[in-house]
Amino acid sequence: MVRHRVPAGHAGSFEARKGQHLAVVDIEGGQCADFWALDADDFDHYLSPSFTVVHIQSLQPKLGDTLVSNRREPVLTVVSDDVGRHDMLYPACDKRRYELYFGVSEHRNCRDNFLEAVARYPWGSRAVPNPLNIFMNTSIRDDGTVVTMEPRSLAGDRVIMRAEVNLVGVVSSCPMDLTPTGSDGITDLEVLVSDDLESLQRL
Amino acid sequence: MVRHRVPAGHAGSFEARKGQHLAVVDIEGGQCADFWALDADDFDHYLSPSFTVVHIQSLQPKLGDTLVSNRREPVLTVVSDDVGRHDMLYPACDKRRYELYFGVSEHRNCRDNFLEAVARYPWGSRAVPNPLNIFMNTSIRDDGTVVTMEPRSLAGDRVIMRAEVNLVGVVSSCPMDLTPTGSDGITDLEVLVSDDLESLQRL
Repeated sequence: MVRHRVPAGHAGSFEARKGQHLAVVDIEGGQCADFWALDADDFDHYLSPSFTVVHIQSLQPKLGDTLVSNRREPVLTVVSDDVGRHDMLYPACDKRRYELYFGVSEHRNCRDNFLEAVARYPWGSRAVPNPLNIFMNTSIRDDGTVVTMEPRSLAGDRVIMRAEVNLVGVVSSCPMDLTPTGSDGITDLEVLVSDDLESLQRL
Repeated sequence: MVRHRVPAGHAGSFEARKGQHLAVVDIEGGQCADFWALDADDFDHYLSPSFTVVHIQSLQPKLGDTLVSNRREPVLTVVSDDVGRHDMLYPACDKRRYELYFGVSEHRNCRDNFLEAVARYPWGSRAVPNPLNIFMNTSIRDDGTVVTMEPRSLAGDRVIMRAEVNLVGVVSSCPMDLTPTGSDGITDLEVLVSDDLESLQRL
């Protein structure tokens, strides 16, 4: 098993081969993980929350669901989920989000975190895809209003997925400390990658 | 006023200057309009439904709402809406959607329609942005399930927006005839562009 520690408010990259399992672990609880999965063989091909919403006909990925790419191809399958509440609507936070909505300049943000994490790869000038926001707790009221509440994840909670392609992953510990997304403090995350599913379930 | 007729199942492009108004008209009713607005001065900058969802904190654009770009900048403002039910979740349908989910090959689709419509511009190999799906009737159940029903638009219903930048627009009469999106038949749309708001309201 390979362990990747993601420092609070920063991001890290990892690799997983097709058939391997990966766990995204909320070490202290209540932390949103912006998550990207790129096809290691073709960076124009990547996990897409909006295509996944169409594929699963839901805003909430469930156990056994296949998460698909911008070409509607399988990228990951959800094999274990301690939380069951995530977000597939929000683009990554960026500098402009903090400036425009909170009057804060030069705030750390998931968009720049992503770009830092992929700098070692030939990502180039591609547009930053929308992430799967693991543990982010959004829900929709009847009139369409989007409500964000504190993540439901407790210390050690995790989502485990099987890679359906060879992938380069990025996980950003979302530095958003100005909404319920992370108002209780920004904390570390961990990504575990293994051939052996059971080894990822509790450590 | 400039009138652009969009043939059933096809797309057309149009231009509007900052401050002009544009109407997207459902001529016969019940027809989904995949709608894109690109910054005429910078094609890396375009209307983004997912950034708009964050900006308006809703899946449903309402009267007076500003629709924003992938840089969180104003692109359009909604100034009139006969229908009040649209979709900001679905990526454009593509060949693969018809093959994968319906077993139909070589179906017309909004992705290829977009690429045909922008072929006269230097769009290049950029990824196709997600459209605003005007008149498409999606709603969300409490458990997150996405439900698509027939559009509520009646003959002549329209959405009128003010351009907040100089823009190149594309409207595709969505050829999806295999879901409630357009199961009553695919029909023409019209785009009207004018300096004069009142001239667009009923014709």
